[in-house]
Amino acid sequence: MNSSKPRVAFVGVGRMGRNMALRLHELHYPIASVFDVDRARAADLAASIGAPVAANLAAVTQSAEVVITVVTDDTAMRAIYASTDDSLLRGARGRLFINCATVSPAVHVLVERAAQASGAESLEACMASSIPQARQGALYLMCGGSRHAYERAEPVLRDLAASLRYVGPAGTAAQVKALVNMVMNINTAGLAEGLGLGAALGLDLTMLRDVFAQTGANSRVLETDGADMQNREHECYFSAAHAAKDAGIALALAHQANLDLPLAMATKAQFDRLIALGQGELDKSAVADLTFQGRGAPSTATP
Amino acid sequence: MNSSKPRVAFVGVGRMGRNMALRLHELHYPIASVFDVDRARAADLAASIGAPVAANLAAVTQSAEVVITVVTDDTAMRAIYASTDDSLLRGARGRLFINCATVSPAVHVLVERAAQASGAESLEACMASSIPQARQGALYLMCGGSRHAYERAEPVLRDLAASLRYVGPAGTAAQVKALVNMVMNINTAGLAEGLGLGAALGLDLTMLRDVFAQTGANSRVLETDGADMQNREHECYFSAAHAAKDAGIALALAHQANLDLPLAMATKAQFDRLIALGQGELDKSAVADLTFQGRGAPSTATP
Repeated sequence: MNSSKPRVAFVGVGRMGRNMALRLHELHYPIASVFDVDRARAADLAASIGAPVAANLAAVTQSAEVVITVVTDDTAMRAIYASTDDSLLRGARGRLFINCATVSPAVHVLVERAAQASGAESLEACMASSIPQARQGALYLMCGGSRHAYERAEPVLRDLAASLRYVGPAGTAAQVKALVNMVMNINTAGLAEGLGLGAALGLDLTMLRDVFAQTGANSRVLETDGADMQNREHECYFSAAHAAKDAGIALALAHQANLDLPLAMATKAQFDRLIALGQGELDKSAVADLTFQGRGAPSTATP
Repeated sequence: MNSSKPRVAFVGVGRMGRNMALRLHELHYPIASVFDVDRARAADLAASIGAPVAANLAAVTQSAEVVITVVTDDTAMRAIYASTDDSLLRGARGRLFINCATVSPAVHVLVERAAQASGAESLEACMASSIPQARQGALYLMCGGSRHAYERAEPVLRDLAASLRYVGPAGTAAQVKALVNMVMNINTAGLAEGLGLGAALGLDLTMLRDVFAQTGANSRVLETDGADMQNREHECYFSAAHAAKDAGIALALAHQANLDLPLAMATKAQFDRLIALGQGELDKSAVADLTFQGRGAPSTATP
């Protein structure tokens, strides 16, 4: 063990949290403990890296200087930082919490306030990347919080990220992430319509994607999702349910700002429709199945 | 004059047609005549390149082996190929018509049929580029029609295009173009919502565009329109009215195929709204003004 590296604990070891822990373990960080509401999941990771499973949240905080959390949603974030006996905030003086889940900006603000009241610091570190980047320490990370917390977190985050950026106070990174995903999901739903209509017209979709790539229709999602839409390969990198959740966060921000976002609303409706069809756990590229004829999704077209 | 180059005439010398004519003139093509319903426009170009203004459409056909048309819309295309006395089809035997306007796929099919009935050939050559590319001979051209017509047109088109592609029978290129513009316009309207919401949240939009560019939100329209949306610079490269027209073509194709395209519909509604606000002649980037607060567009938000 390298004594210059802080003791790190993990809360929430689904695919992202697990792979971040594997990465830091590989770099010889002492992984002080791991915790997950799914105890089997925590035990599995713990066995892989020879780390203890924490009995509860207070034990996590007791075990480490730096606690990295990657939980599911706003509710889970509020729960782990609750003012109850079993909370990360118990005995938290001096700790640094780094929160990587995509949750509402307001929740990051609340968590920062609660952490500070407990003598700790917190930082939001929003991720705009997926599993392979987590495993390889090549995340795209945007951080929101105090400058002091950012500078303290920076050495650990540099070991997890290929790109690291401080964007402003707590909640700002979640706002930027919500906007990134909103625009990405609009582009995804729009590409699905373009390819689906192309298929209905009998066009060669490989030619069509090639033309899109060379013209004003080009986009990152064309690169990442275009072939998958054509070939109906929806192994999940970023689920439709996740896309719908992100859309909800962005639309809530828009509602607070009194803005009408018709494209974002139409996009959310498409992903909600996928979920209603029981396909929420497919990759977001499955939104194409709503437009491609003969793919089983009931048409809503009115002839 | 190079005798190996065919005599070329131009019908419709708005900004695209004019710049294509200037390009071919520069390459020493004999420009046999020019014609436009706006006679001053035709006269201006004719004076620039020392070419005659044709008295009528039949005179255009009489003057040249190759006639390049760049007209406004379906109605104009039907008019120049009408079965009347003043039509490009009068005395058209042996002529090659190259039609560069973005019109409905079905109109290209009708024009090809009428040209063939007159002993001529026609080719659709859809452009996915703008004025500077026309002037520099760097157009992105997609061609639909018979292989024979394509091969005959190819030497001239190579002098106009940086990228030239045969995509299938008459009407196919217009279909592909409609899909390119549909996806481009969806991405544009979606980007406008992302930047507009970012502005409402008080985010640094230069930072936000930078993050978009590095993540799944990246797109060609982010490169071409992102800064213009931020800075409210809507000098026209591709007008909002044009975007609405394209959306109409794509939605008509979708309707025929019995497909529901909610993103394309929401996008058309946004561009229609710009037109209703008297801003149809601004660049498509002006769609951002519908979302950015304080830019004069009435909010439709329901608080």
